[in-house]
Amino acid sequence: MKTVPISQDAEPESISAYGPARSTVTTTPLNAEDIRKMEAYFRASVYLCLGMLYLRGNPLLKEPLVKENLKARLLGHWGSDSGQVFTWMHFNRVIKKYDLDALYVSGPGHGAPAVLSQAYLEGTYSEVYPDKSEDEEGMQRFFKQFSFPGGIGSHATPETPGSIHEGGELGYSISHAFGSVFDNPNLITLTVVGDGEAETGPLATSWHSNKFLNPITDGAVLPVLHLNGYKINNPTILARISHRELEALFFGYGYQPYFVEGSDMKTMHQAMAATVEHCVLEIRKFQKQARDSKKAFRPRWPMIVLRSPKGWSAPRDVDGKFLEGFWRAHQIPITDVASNPDHLKLLETWMRSYKPEEVFDKTGKLIPELRALTPTGNARMSANPVGNGGLLRKPLHMPDFRDYSLPDIKAGYSFLGSMVNMSKFLRDVVAKNMTNFRIFGPDETESNKLGEVYKAGKKVWLGEYFDEDSDGGNLATEGRVMEMLSEHTCEGWLEGYILSGRHGLLNSYEPFIHVIDSMVNQHCKWIEKCAEVEWRAKVASLNILLTATVWRQDHNGFTHQDPGFLDVVANKSPEVVRIYLPPDGNCLLSVTDHCLRSVNYVNVIVADKQDHLQYLNMEEAIEHCTKGAGIWDWASNDQGCEPDVVMASCGDVPTHEALAATALLREFLPQLKIRFVNVVDLFKLINHGDHPHGLSDREWISTFTNDKPIIFNFHSYPWLIHRLTYKRPGQTNLHVRGYNEKGNIDTPLELAIRNKTDRYSLAIDAIDRIPSLHNTASAARERLLNLQIKAKTQAFDNGIDPDYITMWRWPYDRVKPDGQ
Amino acid sequence: MKTVPISQDAEPESISAYGPARSTVTTTPLNAEDIRKMEAYFRASVYLCLGMLYLRGNPLLKEPLVKENLKARLLGHWGSDSGQVFTWMHFNRVIKKYDLDALYVSGPGHGAPAVLSQAYLEGTYSEVYPDKSEDEEGMQRFFKQFSFPGGIGSHATPETPGSIHEGGELGYSISHAFGSVFDNPNLITLTVVGDGEAETGPLATSWHSNKFLNPITDGAVLPVLHLNGYKINNPTILARISHRELEALFFGYGYQPYFVEGSDMKTMHQAMAATVEHCVLEIRKFQKQARDSKKAFRPRWPMIVLRSPKGWSAPRDVDGKFLEGFWRAHQIPITDVASNPDHLKLLETWMRSYKPEEVFDKTGKLIPELRALTPTGNARMSANPVGNGGLLRKPLHMPDFRDYSLPDIKAGYSFLGSMVNMSKFLRDVVAKNMTNFRIFGPDETESNKLGEVYKAGKKVWLGEYFDEDSDGGNLATEGRVMEMLSEHTCEGWLEGYILSGRHGLLNSYEPFIHVIDSMVNQHCKWIEKCAEVEWRAKVASLNILLTATVWRQDHNGFTHQDPGFLDVVANKSPEVVRIYLPPDGNCLLSVTDHCLRSVNYVNVIVADKQDHLQYLNMEEAIEHCTKGAGIWDWASNDQGCEPDVVMASCGDVPTHEALAATALLREFLPQLKIRFVNVVDLFKLINHGDHPHGLSDREWISTFTNDKPIIFNFHSYPWLIHRLTYKRPGQTNLHVRGYNEKGNIDTPLELAIRNKTDRYSLAIDAIDRIPSLHNTASAARERLLNLQIKAKTQAFDNGIDPDYITMWRWPYDRVKPDGQ
Repeated sequence: MKTVPISQDAEPESISAYGPARSTVTTTPLNAEDIRKMEAYFRASVYLCLGMLYLRGNPLLKEPLVKENLKARLLGHWGSDSGQVFTWMHFNRVIKKYDLDALYVSGPGHGAPAVLSQAYLEGTYSEVYPDKSEDEEGMQRFFKQFSFPGGIGSHATPETPGSIHEGGELGYSISHAFGSVFDNPNLITLTVVGDGEAETGPLATSWHSNKFLNPITDGAVLPVLHLNGYKINNPTILARISHRELEALFFGYGYQPYFVEGSDMKTMHQAMAATVEHCVLEIRKFQKQARDSKKAFRPRWPMIVLRSPKGWSAPRDVDGKFLEGFWRAHQIPITDVASNPDHLKLLETWMRSYKPEEVFDKTGKLIPELRALTPTGNARMSANPVGNGGLLRKPLHMPDFRDYSLPDIKAGYSFLGSMVNMSKFLRDVVAKNMTNFRIFGPDETESNKLGEVYKAGKKVWLGEYFDEDSDGGNLATEGRVMEMLSEHTCEGWLEGYILSGRHGLLNSYEPFIHVIDSMVNQHCKWIEKCAEVEWRAKVASLNILLTATVWRQDHNGFTHQDPGFLDVVANKSPEVVRIYLPPDGNCLLSVTDHCLRSVNYVNVIVADKQDHLQYLNMEEAIEHCTKGAGIWDWASNDQGCEPDVVMASCGDVPTHEALAATALLREFLPQLKIRFVNVVDLFKLINHGDHPHGLSDREWISTFTNDKPIIFNFHSYPWLIHRLTYKRPGQTNLHVRGYNEKGNIDTPLELAIRNKTDRYSLAIDAIDRIPSLHNTASAARERLLNLQIKAKTQAFDNGIDPDYITMWRWPYDRVKPDGQ
Repeated sequence: MKTVPISQDAEPESISAYGPARSTVTTTPLNAEDIRKMEAYFRASVYLCLGMLYLRGNPLLKEPLVKENLKARLLGHWGSDSGQVFTWMHFNRVIKKYDLDALYVSGPGHGAPAVLSQAYLEGTYSEVYPDKSEDEEGMQRFFKQFSFPGGIGSHATPETPGSIHEGGELGYSISHAFGSVFDNPNLITLTVVGDGEAETGPLATSWHSNKFLNPITDGAVLPVLHLNGYKINNPTILARISHRELEALFFGYGYQPYFVEGSDMKTMHQAMAATVEHCVLEIRKFQKQARDSKKAFRPRWPMIVLRSPKGWSAPRDVDGKFLEGFWRAHQIPITDVASNPDHLKLLETWMRSYKPEEVFDKTGKLIPELRALTPTGNARMSANPVGNGGLLRKPLHMPDFRDYSLPDIKAGYSFLGSMVNMSKFLRDVVAKNMTNFRIFGPDETESNKLGEVYKAGKKVWLGEYFDEDSDGGNLATEGRVMEMLSEHTCEGWLEGYILSGRHGLLNSYEPFIHVIDSMVNQHCKWIEKCAEVEWRAKVASLNILLTATVWRQDHNGFTHQDPGFLDVVANKSPEVVRIYLPPDGNCLLSVTDHCLRSVNYVNVIVADKQDHLQYLNMEEAIEHCTKGAGIWDWASNDQGCEPDVVMASCGDVPTHEALAATALLREFLPQLKIRFVNVVDLFKLINHGDHPHGLSDREWISTFTNDKPIIFNFHSYPWLIHRLTYKRPGQTNLHVRGYNEKGNIDTPLELAIRNKTDRYSLAIDAIDRIPSLHNTASAARERLLNLQIKAKTQAFDNGIDPDYITMWRWPYDRVKPDGQ
């Protein structure tokens, strides 16, 4: 019953997944009786996994297996199931022994059968879904629903009790796990990382999350790297490097890796029991040390390397071809069971080798001595409320955003920083919610003018400190801002933090947010699906604040210009996505307040961080943001009559230029009747039938008219407006200007001119779209063109726009007579 | 002059960037005279960097520095310049000594001044841009253009001689570098990795590229991790972990790290010279060992950790605040020089400390003894033709794709695998181009039915081998297929491979291609910009083959459903992007052939990997693909008259269902005149003025009519079609069906029905859109609805579609009388 101490030198022999257990920890906490029960529990678990893959009838194999018992289409994955089951059940033992608060994150792809089997054996599944009861009939339904039309998928989808991590797209298990334990000091999130997943970039860097974990105020993650050796059709890298390299790699990442390797069941149970217990005691020891001393430090956190055969406990070969311990065990292990009677027999023999009749009673219920191995109530990882974080979510204590208003705004004169002002509000949101709100960002929070938040909570940093850090470093072991130059990790942390019941905001440069397109997609899908799962409580919205926007990336050039994240988001379900482009500082405050209070959305806010003209006082801003889109009377002169043209805008810089164009038009062509419309909430543009925020066609007409030219200046690619307004009345009169893909080093004005989003181009555009002006406005048109050329020339010669401030300031004084 | 051997134990002291050099290699190859010259060359280099950041006049400081000499807007980054200059110049020494073929990849953000300074000092810049001549006037222009309107950016943009890696978005230096050395056995790509960049996910996993590098047939990458300690406003993780951890991490990644740490110039030059030389000799040794023995193995490749102060050689502090060795040195090091005379003076003193008058002659040219330090001709890293890979590109030897035709196609009857057939063509493309064509993919090539390619070239694998690999592993140390479960790394390798003059194709699951949205964006920007740079020769297109498409992700569920990559691509410049959705196998062949022959594009091909109905014989397919969009006469019955409705499709599964709908309509309503249109080349839909492939409006009308209802069944989100066809004649008659965001576990038929892209929904849709049918087609409508309900019920009960094959087969026989 002894395990073999692991050899430090032998390589590559030591990287085999076969043989008696080899392990770093060699204590033997289990007696023979314990091991007997462990083996039985393992058998019950993997029997359920196979049942999910294959059976729609005869769930306990009380009858001989016939092909009519099989699902018509076999779907699902076997590869990582046994290793995950093994890991989960061993944690159960220490949960019970040490009264742990624990959550399980399943990283390997398509490993749901493992997780589902545990939820079912622990009784949680039947509590949540009473028709999947703990009896033969329930088991049959439980099997059939898996990867079956109308049923559940092969990942730990939202329907899975205890899951906050679906894992459909690989790479985020570790960052999600860390997100769940921040500010959860008692929680240990046991996280199985697949060795396929471990090859992804996001996973590879997320190991460094340990430099951001405070052992006093945060919980701990216990990663289990599951080296089962194979992906779909390939070996994995980490399973094919030497033991020394593997150990060094994780030491280098800051962990103490504990190895458990082999295939022999009895010794593997002993080794895993010893190792898991040792790791938990290490975690507890480090936490106690830090908490007793009140000195946070970065311990060498433990992690486990579990090397076991892929598809462990399957037949080693079938018809002379490797199954267990090879990539063929990845998905359905034997595929032709319906057509090949020998293989059907093989499957039956295999399934019966788990002795279902021994581990389940006649009614189909797990026998009591095995049930006694599981924790009870919320101690079950499948029932931990953290896994249904909405239950734990408390609304934020919100300061009144009105208290942070930019006061006495004179529309088009006041010139202030919207973002830097909003950061004071954000600072106080942090201050009032010191244990359940964090700000995340890839090294750009200060650059994004949000540095004020450090006054309430510094940047978490558990790396080494230098003396020079006191010179404005804003680092602290206990902080509220999380900065690592990995958008993936920041987003993963935030998702984990939200899904475990807390609140947060990610700030990022707009051009690089595409880095996490796919992550945001997956989160949208998660929360959309959650809304259909009755027992899932609503979680806080995922808030993404984008700045360093395309219109101010003139000098950084082409690679920093891409506003297309909005297109990605707009493809997601209208149930879950919201996009806001506040035109000024008070609108930014109002929108941010709204987003932080909301639940179950992905909110995207796009706002420039530079100083800007301001337009609305707070009450006006609230009204405007509440409407989401509306006429700005103070900038319009069509009161009491039909406008000749509608000037419209969405986004702060585009609004600025559209207003300047309006001013120019009103100066040069005072007879012209202009209506100015601003859109804050992008989805106001869609028809009400397609998005809950959408304007009705009647509202649309009363705002935009149905027959007048609309010159619409937009922040992002113009196509997005066209697709949102598809089939709107008067749609053919809509002329959208926005960003087009073309790279140069420019001044902001040149950039705008090249994209025809500058004041002069817009004004000329309007003139050209108004038939009545075709013969009368040629002088005005000429003047506008000359102004544009002059501005452009000056910019080119000097490297800055002619009058840098005025460039961004609305020359509203020129049209004062009609104005406010 | 001796360097200090690095201490293995001392920590954290050993992680300071200050003091005399500490290094792993302690030989002393330089004499005092060598060091004197090295110091002078370094001064010339960083002087140029500062000049680019600050000056528009007085480039050699022949006059006192006045604020009129300064650029009006100061832009650019100083932080990594000195470290990169230092690295580059030391490689020059070994290039000359050992006659190396070398390329430089600049990973740190905004490090262009370093690279530009070297290109200028080596004479390459003036050769390529004669107005930036090697004299005072040229230097002045060289300074002024940097981050100046109409000039060049602060990354190693396409305008930079010798660059294949812009680095605007961080994380891809290592994968690009490896891409450049695959099949380039003599090349060494010196790659500086920023410690900020090193935190990104893509970079963190790309270190594992060494498991895919063959020491016989490939060249080598020499990575230099530049620990300058800071990002924009934060310390970096890798600069704040212990020496032991850092060393272990890179040992774990498979490298032998050699450290060079410190700030003292003289000893640092000695240490770096010794270390670089040692690494090159190690590389040469490993290569010789493998090449002599003809046995490929994975050596412990060398890498360098260069720890030097951020902004090295700047003043350590300004006004009592740290500058050098702190994050304040990241961007413009002293910002208020125009308004603060003391700071202007400080800048002048600092710049003069580099003694420009000593290193440049009176005319402004680098003095001969320093010029003698640089290699000449193509040995200069700034002039290596690999850095302008199009020069080296040879067209692929292409087998005739017609030889792989699916023969004797009976439209709508033949049922064959398009992808598995195309893989034979791809196999022979591999076979005919064994040194300049590779296939890349994240562990999905076999799953994507492309396994045939392994017959021509196996999967490259330099990890450990197990006996079981012989059981269908298809692994080899020398192969043509690159598989790692990191879309980022695969894409990075492919980009590097293409930009250095070769050809390739990435195959991936459609749902996870969003992982590399931002990388594809950046590559599009790169090649678009290249087209404007006269001396850049055209490179092969980047070909992305997407399969496991949304319509066959029914069972994998919601996380595997996202066809939105096309939206991201469609946002890029029409000059560089192409999207193809071949409807069947012969079209897939024709399109693939076309893409592999093309240059300077990003081609996206979307095609299902499952067996499919086939429609076109090869000559028909060629004609159809050449047109890109056209009427399928054989499926239409409107010959000689106006159609009542146009049934249109784009994408293979949507085409299948649209054809089936057509068949149903023609069976149930034989009097109806239906035109069937298929679109292969998505950009045919855009107006010709907006994309070179676009149909003219006249062509549009002759294909789609301008007044008939068009039922358009589309592969992706329907909005994309609306935005592409914006303002097309008859646009309001266009009714697009496509994927909508909603998650369930479905059969393919259920999935289609839920999205209204199934045959029944489409046929009903057509009926509802044809006014003349409103009163006459109710019976047909009812029959269609009943068929739909019946199919759905059967699917739900059995877990598979009623007749799985027929479901995907066009029941064309029902309408044979009108048909072919």
